[in-house]
Amino acid sequence: MALNVTQKLLRSHLSEGKPEAGTPIGLHVDQALLQDATGTLVMLSLEALGLAAPHTETAVQYVDHNLLQQDSRNAEDHVFLRSGAARFGLIYSRPGNGVSHPLHMARFGVPGKTLLGSDSHTPAAGALGMLAFGAGGLDVAMAIAGVPYPLTMPRVWGIRLTGKMPDWVSAKDVILEMLRRHGVSGGLNRIIEYHGPGLKTLGTMDRHVIANMGTELGATSSVFPSDDRTQAFLETHGRSEDWTEIVADDSAAYDMADEIDLSQLEPLIALPSSPGNVVSVREVEGKPVHQAYIGSSANPGYRDFAVVAEMVRGRRIAAGTSLDINPTSRTLLQELADDGSLTALLASGARLHQVGCNGCIGMGQAPAKGLNSLRTVPRNFPGRSGAREDAVFLCSPETAAASILSGRITDPRRMDMPFPRIEDAGKRLAASEMFEYPPGRETGRKIELVKGGNIVSLPAFEPLPEHLELKVILRLGDDISTDEIMPAGAEALPYRSNIPKIAQFVFRDIDEDYPANAEQAAGGHMIVAGDNYGQGSSREHAALAPRYLGLRAVLAKSFARIHHQNLLNYGVLPLVADNADNDDDLDRIDSGQTIVIEGAASALRGNKDRLRLHLGGQRALEVRFELTNRERRVLLDGGLVNFHRNQA
Amino acid sequence: MALNVTQKLLRSHLSEGKPEAGTPIGLHVDQALLQDATGTLVMLSLEALGLAAPHTETAVQYVDHNLLQQDSRNAEDHVFLRSGAARFGLIYSRPGNGVSHPLHMARFGVPGKTLLGSDSHTPAAGALGMLAFGAGGLDVAMAIAGVPYPLTMPRVWGIRLTGKMPDWVSAKDVILEMLRRHGVSGGLNRIIEYHGPGLKTLGTMDRHVIANMGTELGATSSVFPSDDRTQAFLETHGRSEDWTEIVADDSAAYDMADEIDLSQLEPLIALPSSPGNVVSVREVEGKPVHQAYIGSSANPGYRDFAVVAEMVRGRRIAAGTSLDINPTSRTLLQELADDGSLTALLASGARLHQVGCNGCIGMGQAPAKGLNSLRTVPRNFPGRSGAREDAVFLCSPETAAASILSGRITDPRRMDMPFPRIEDAGKRLAASEMFEYPPGRETGRKIELVKGGNIVSLPAFEPLPEHLELKVILRLGDDISTDEIMPAGAEALPYRSNIPKIAQFVFRDIDEDYPANAEQAAGGHMIVAGDNYGQGSSREHAALAPRYLGLRAVLAKSFARIHHQNLLNYGVLPLVADNADNDDDLDRIDSGQTIVIEGAASALRGNKDRLRLHLGGQRALEVRFELTNRERRVLLDGGLVNFHRNQA
Repeated sequence: MALNVTQKLLRSHLSEGKPEAGTPIGLHVDQALLQDATGTLVMLSLEALGLAAPHTETAVQYVDHNLLQQDSRNAEDHVFLRSGAARFGLIYSRPGNGVSHPLHMARFGVPGKTLLGSDSHTPAAGALGMLAFGAGGLDVAMAIAGVPYPLTMPRVWGIRLTGKMPDWVSAKDVILEMLRRHGVSGGLNRIIEYHGPGLKTLGTMDRHVIANMGTELGATSSVFPSDDRTQAFLETHGRSEDWTEIVADDSAAYDMADEIDLSQLEPLIALPSSPGNVVSVREVEGKPVHQAYIGSSANPGYRDFAVVAEMVRGRRIAAGTSLDINPTSRTLLQELADDGSLTALLASGARLHQVGCNGCIGMGQAPAKGLNSLRTVPRNFPGRSGAREDAVFLCSPETAAASILSGRITDPRRMDMPFPRIEDAGKRLAASEMFEYPPGRETGRKIELVKGGNIVSLPAFEPLPEHLELKVILRLGDDISTDEIMPAGAEALPYRSNIPKIAQFVFRDIDEDYPANAEQAAGGHMIVAGDNYGQGSSREHAALAPRYLGLRAVLAKSFARIHHQNLLNYGVLPLVADNADNDDDLDRIDSGQTIVIEGAASALRGNKDRLRLHLGGQRALEVRFELTNRERRVLLDGGLVNFHRNQA
Repeated sequence: MALNVTQKLLRSHLSEGKPEAGTPIGLHVDQALLQDATGTLVMLSLEALGLAAPHTETAVQYVDHNLLQQDSRNAEDHVFLRSGAARFGLIYSRPGNGVSHPLHMARFGVPGKTLLGSDSHTPAAGALGMLAFGAGGLDVAMAIAGVPYPLTMPRVWGIRLTGKMPDWVSAKDVILEMLRRHGVSGGLNRIIEYHGPGLKTLGTMDRHVIANMGTELGATSSVFPSDDRTQAFLETHGRSEDWTEIVADDSAAYDMADEIDLSQLEPLIALPSSPGNVVSVREVEGKPVHQAYIGSSANPGYRDFAVVAEMVRGRRIAAGTSLDINPTSRTLLQELADDGSLTALLASGARLHQVGCNGCIGMGQAPAKGLNSLRTVPRNFPGRSGAREDAVFLCSPETAAASILSGRITDPRRMDMPFPRIEDAGKRLAASEMFEYPPGRETGRKIELVKGGNIVSLPAFEPLPEHLELKVILRLGDDISTDEIMPAGAEALPYRSNIPKIAQFVFRDIDEDYPANAEQAAGGHMIVAGDNYGQGSSREHAALAPRYLGLRAVLAKSFARIHHQNLLNYGVLPLVADNADNDDDLDRIDSGQTIVIEGAASALRGNKDRLRLHLGGQRALEVRFELTNRERRVLLDGGLVNFHRNQA
């Protein structure tokens, strides 16, 4: 049977279930990636599991999110993560090394391997012929402990690429075209596989841009073949021996298909405040621009910075604007310094920031309210920049640079210069060995975890009761992101290991009374939402913190994959409105009313997939579960920690 | 009559009074310097004054303090400051240009001129043969509006320098030696003038280090002659024409004298948490080090970074440590990038931060609690790093670099390499014209001030009443700094233009109930303190915010100069304990008791310099004023704003 790349990767890692779309499977996980914002909870979970050594081939703790250190908490977390990495046998990547996804791909990525990361953009490694998923920290902890990753087998969506991108169009425009066509939930329950003759025109870092932002389509993952471009990339990083060819068989088929002629693309831009609001740059030219932001895991390559440097070289950014440069990694910054790109950027008026995720997750560089900010980052959910009432646009480095030079949104094709065509793989990145390898099992187990005062043990939750009386304290629309549920940013993120504290920030920008209202609902509470609830980041705090406040059920038309998993992991019932196309059902529920759920535990135990909600009087509403057997058991136990404790 | 440099500078700018120590004088101000943390209040004051054009020759608004932008407030303040600079005729230095003091000296400093700055380290310009003072924002606003700067004529303290610094000793060790000998109040009411044959061995940026930290001695200013080293510095910056020679007359005398033989100095270090806790590095060698912090206006020169780069070149910082590089200016960063210093730093494991003040004022890079941080910054007051319970040491770049390589406090003379002797003036800084010049009076007055939501008008205060009943809500010891009164840092500083908000942070780390207790004392409250109350930063918020909360009087053994002025400017009575050497007087006052002050206004009006505090029953305490006539009138009117309104 002819297989596509995704099928090959899935089959070689299948440990449970059958590779048929819609069926539950378990996947063997080769590599794990942690970042610091989610990593502290993972370390606490590994401690609870009593892990002696990782079962994964490679597990790396990166520190890239919380680097502002406005008080002692961030630095204390770094010390804690370093001690945890040494104790549990993970590689530690110190602050200043760089952003996890590009760094992992360059230094540890291996074609054909699976990767599970506690960050939603982990699928970026699909650029290297890997099968990579974002997940909540608890799932990653389980994978490190050797538990296969549970997944509902997605469909494989083949995107055939033809042609070659014109000048001033780059990889960002490819993924923006996908978002323009399919929106932020267009990829739900799908793995996107890119194939076709256009592939050879895309270098590995171009593919990274596209795979990274597959997450914005709601896709489970994105996959590229491992071909000669992959080989060239690994050669550049001195790891030729890690290359193997992985390409689709000649007559391989896909569950669904689309095609992009790269030569027909033009510069695109996502308007505030969703990655799905894509239009051509032409259509919005002339709007004033106050900030251009270059960097993040969505445009992390050398090329993405060097092209901006060439565009601004000898020019000056518009008066009163800010051009913010956020280097991806230590080695990339060294390259930019050594080849004069950095000087060209600074001389144009740019501000250089530290290596890391920074403003992409609201850690600095927030724009003024209402002033337009053009960013090469993957997301522009409301408030994610750190500024409430922000106006963030997503675009390519070319569009950002052209616009900040003129002070207005500008199609980069207007630039009066030849297009600076820069090949990423042509650049040999200086290897600076800034990773700390664990000392080995015997020494490691003697290492004490250094817990600063801000690191508080995980709260414990009870098993699912038979009878629930839940007050509806929030009604929401479609596409609510985890940035809206659990804001990131410099105020909240330092509390990421302190659930009681961070819970006070839940839904801050939507309903600042939420935590207080939740506390008043003594028997627990419930949320009603629309489609694609929980899109965006993988942060499990968006499930754990509301659960801590008493959230017991979410009723939505549909859920984003990772958040659905996180709700289960912390024992929150994810209920699907039976008739999702008919708003009437949900309209019958009022904010403030109390809903009685009888027999939820019996229904789960009895493998039923429907449940009645009693709305008061004679009124009732039928809702559905979309759960595997394992997920039912996790819910019944009150979450994944309880489930694994009961298993052991 | 033979004059020293200070006398020459004072006499050429005297507009009121006689140049005799202890008498009130007024000085003509040639130049003004604002930074953003204090500048927004200055702009609001200029607006209140209806200023059409500055009366100073040069006035520059720098943006170097609040660059983290974790929400929209910082960016909105930048927009506001830029609009204010254009409106009132100031030069605007955009975020990313660099730290005010070294930038001002390089680009605008002129030997022989006076400079008033709303930042306590403004005296750094004394390195260039200028007479420079730090002051509260309101005083700087008045100077821009043409009002002579009121000052009590200080004594001139001649420090004779001989010899030449040995290898591995640098300018920071000179000023640490001054602090070792004389402590943090050793310079009160003095201008320090450096002279002697050792001077020629110190370049202008070395002198900057020494003049900058004269503030830590409590000195009114520090002054160097303008000689051939000054000429070389101005030549480097393309401004030869601004040089004039200003040296002391041959037989010039000083009010008091000390001498430092530079050849006898060794590496010194200030222990936590005062710049006055100085010991030799030898004495504390071996203590573990977690962070080294390079940068700030205390070690801002090219040399201070390049020497670290040479020391770490080809080496690796100790595992688990952080080496944080904070470039002074855009041009300095360009130099470090172009000559390979930056690459050497990064390859050793350093983290590069944005250009600006950053962690020096608690904006990022806070260390973990209790872990030792070695910094080249000017101050280590408790909590100033942003971390409560911090352990910050002050030292030279050489000591910081040697220590971070070994992970332990290390005397740099142990380095197994020749001392990298780097001359600052040998380096031509690339001029990048990133200043925005105001459009001129006619266009300027049409420019609208862009006030973000966080910019709130100044509160108004009543004239001094005859009868006060004040509750004593805080008793403090010696050397309380403005960092302790009004914390800086990323949490509080964004509210610097919003007095009601920032007032909630007053005395946070000493008594977090202070704002609540102040509000409960309906008739106003009072603070009792020891010596040198209000040392450190010039921030007027340390007077304005407590005044907003009801502070009407501070009784102390002595006051730091700028804070004393700021208290007057906002109508707070600065009362001096009559018998400062005898603690008994102050011990008679209990926290929580109410003190009645009868006839304060009459006493001021009647030129009396004593006042009785009624402590209850028959008990009373006699205290003193140390006030000029003008200061009495300011106090009677309820502060400087009222005073000038009444004058007009």
